[in-house]
Amino acid sequence: MPMITLLTDFGVTDTYVGQMKGVIASVAPGATVIDLTHAVPPQQIVVGALMLDAAVDAFDDDAIHVAVVDPGVGSQRRPLAVRTSHGIYVAPDNGLLTAVLARYRAYQVVALTNRRYQRTNVSATFHGRDVFAPAAAHLAVGVKLTELGEPVDPATLVRLDLPQPVRHAEGMTLHVLWVDPFGNLVTDLRAEQLDSDARVTLDDTTILTIADTFSDVPVGEPVAYFGSSGRLEIAVRNGSAAARFDAGSGAVVELRPLVR
Amino acid sequence: MPMITLLTDFGVTDTYVGQMKGVIASVAPGATVIDLTHAVPPQQIVVGALMLDAAVDAFDDDAIHVAVVDPGVGSQRRPLAVRTSHGIYVAPDNGLLTAVLARYRAYQVVALTNRRYQRTNVSATFHGRDVFAPAAAHLAVGVKLTELGEPVDPATLVRLDLPQPVRHAEGMTLHVLWVDPFGNLVTDLRAEQLDSDARVTLDDTTILTIADTFSDVPVGEPVAYFGSSGRLEIAVRNGSAAARFDAGSGAVVELRPLVR
Amino acid sequence: MPMITLLTDFGVTDTYVGQMKGVIASVAPGATVIDLTHAVPPQQIVVGALMLDAAVDAFDDDAIHVAVVDPGVGSQRRPLAVRTSHGIYVAPDNGLLTAVLARYRAYQVVALTNRRYQRTNVSATFHGRDVFAPAAAHLAVGVKLTELGEPVDPATLVRLDLPQPVRHAEGMTLHVLWVDPFGNLVTDLRAEQLDSDARVTLDDTTILTIADTFSDVPVGEPVAYFGSSGRLEIAVRNGSAAARFDAGSGAVVELRPLVR
Repeated sequence: MPMITLLTDFGVTDTYVGQMKGVIASVAPGATVIDLTHAVPPQQIVVGALMLDAAVDAFDDDAIHVAVVDPGVGSQRRPLAVRTSHGIYVAPDNGLLTAVLARYRAYQVVALTNRRYQRTNVSATFHGRDVFAPAAAHLAVGVKLTELGEPVDPATLVRLDLPQPVRHAEGMTLHVLWVDPFGNLVTDLRAEQLDSDARVTLDDTTILTIADTFSDVPVGEPVAYFGSSGRLEIAVRNGSAAARFDAGSGAVVELRPLVR
Repeated sequence: MPMITLLTDFGVTDTYVGQMKGVIASVAPGATVIDLTHAVPPQQIVVGALMLDAAVDAFDDDAIHVAVVDPGVGSQRRPLAVRTSHGIYVAPDNGLLTAVLARYRAYQVVALTNRRYQRTNVSATFHGRDVFAPAAAHLAVGVKLTELGEPVDPATLVRLDLPQPVRHAEGMTLHVLWVDPFGNLVTDLRAEQLDSDARVTLDDTTILTIADTFSDVPVGEPVAYFGSSGRLEIAVRNGSAAARFDAGSGAVVELRPLVR
Repeated sequence: MPMITLLTDFGVTDTYVGQMKGVIASVAPGATVIDLTHAVPPQQIVVGALMLDAAVDAFDDDAIHVAVVDPGVGSQRRPLAVRTSHGIYVAPDNGLLTAVLARYRAYQVVALTNRRYQRTNVSATFHGRDVFAPAAAHLAVGVKLTELGEPVDPATLVRLDLPQPVRHAEGMTLHVLWVDPFGNLVTDLRAEQLDSDARVTLDDTTILTIADTFSDVPVGEPVAYFGSSGRLEIAVRNGSAAARFDAGSGAVVELRPLVR
């Protein structure tokens, strides 16, 4: 049975995630369910899109990823199941899949309209439990994606503008996407977007060359490197770059080519 | 094998929950174990009772729910297993089951006195690991409930007074039970307790009619609706009602019938 | 299949732990994976060592424990798999296993050098996902420990000085190791290190005898007892000792023999 992952902004202090798992276990007993994170900042679709994209590389191509950051629940936004070249995604059509769809081709999409694969009573505010979780569980036990609802043209899916490095005369302006639990600042620059050696700075006084990893600098020193998600990160070895630079999501990082 | 759920006030920063799961996996290898929440405020039995009640609807009738909010661990309070019309509950006899027992009939109750189904050494402070987890795991692998200990008369179970809406001449006074991770204020009013259209207020200046869902109001506006747990919630669309109204557990909400 | 546990300092706000579980599920579908905790304070190896030691008693002898608190990732520290008399440990060779190796004999150790049992592309910063998780998963499906890499002499493993009670003329000086989610102060004194009845104090004014459990004192009163991990804890019944005594990790507790 393929595994099911969950990424939400539900937090873990309430029982919402547990309720989703109860519904999954009822339909697909024994399914492996893996939490990606439930700490997407509430209703921040773009951050959810980027965290989902950073996580899915670690999973098999047949994994079923349920992503619910859904400020429009109860409105007319479509609930979707999307088969791609790397995983099936079950999510609202609000741009939450923008980043994964930029990397993996969507070749089959349905709106989750078939009431047979929803909970009997669908709440107006908790489609994670009543629509998305049962859809994923039915897929896991072998229900065909096309059985879940009406076909949707992949070209019509909502796509959001994601933060991107901005090229300019002196180099590139990068943006901090989020802060990880170590205080590392994860930026929007991917390794393949860097075409020469460079140095980066957050505050004009701290100039960093790009290292292989944080253990290339002494303890307590700042360092830039391409992290496990393939994006440039600013870290402080055995410390917190977020605290050192008083920087968080949205902060600007300047990148300049190295003069040789 | 039936699934096992866990609801505690243990938090997830220490290894207590992991230890309970280790004991379960040892007795019932392969059992599906689902966290409802471990963020019940420490030793707040009433909040635990209400959160448990809000969560169990999403589970099958044969699920085994382990609930441990247990300030009296090590004293004479009885450890219980309770078979009801919707699930088996393994919990201390301190009122933690009050809300579920108000909805589901208890037709078989035992005190967990059979040492054979406890860990070899029972700690004075961690019955979650040493008494409740092994009881649930043995039930999951088919041990009969009556094997776990001495029969108990269901009428003798401890029941606590739970917050209830108070009817008065002008309407009803409701109480905030807890704040969910979105900052929504969950009140003690169930949909079936409301016999006419009404408006609610927390602070006399903000008067809300009751909507179907939060997307019925503009972003940033407060709204009242019956949430996924069947209780009236006060929310701010894409924001936090707890922050907007500076309100938390115990806050008072006034409800008045709509004059037509 | 033996169960796999995870203890890290990765937190649960990012997707790091989910990525490790994705890798495990890919290699060992259906394996039971249990979180011990992901809230070890960032890069605090000693605290991680002590929390791991406190947790593993609850597990079977064949459990596979993955522990990753790894400030030296990407440097020359060795990644290890260690078979002991109570569990297999997969961890960096930085002292994280000090406490368990003081209790359980290591009789087979390898460095994880066999690339066949690592992810295809090994990141410089995330060996939890790319080296340790796949090693544990391969062990779970029956790969021999000796297949994972080069043999290592157990005598060469890094061992750290752990906090220990200091005996002196008047008694012993204890140290608070960490604060649990209830605000209990967990000290470095094990029951077997206490050879007479004693009283303890944090602040000279509060003198506590050692009770069996916290329910031996009235609600709101401080109490000392040997907790579920076998260590002396200072608690406040139904309250927080950390708040009452403004004390945390590293705080000093004085212990004096009882004059009889």
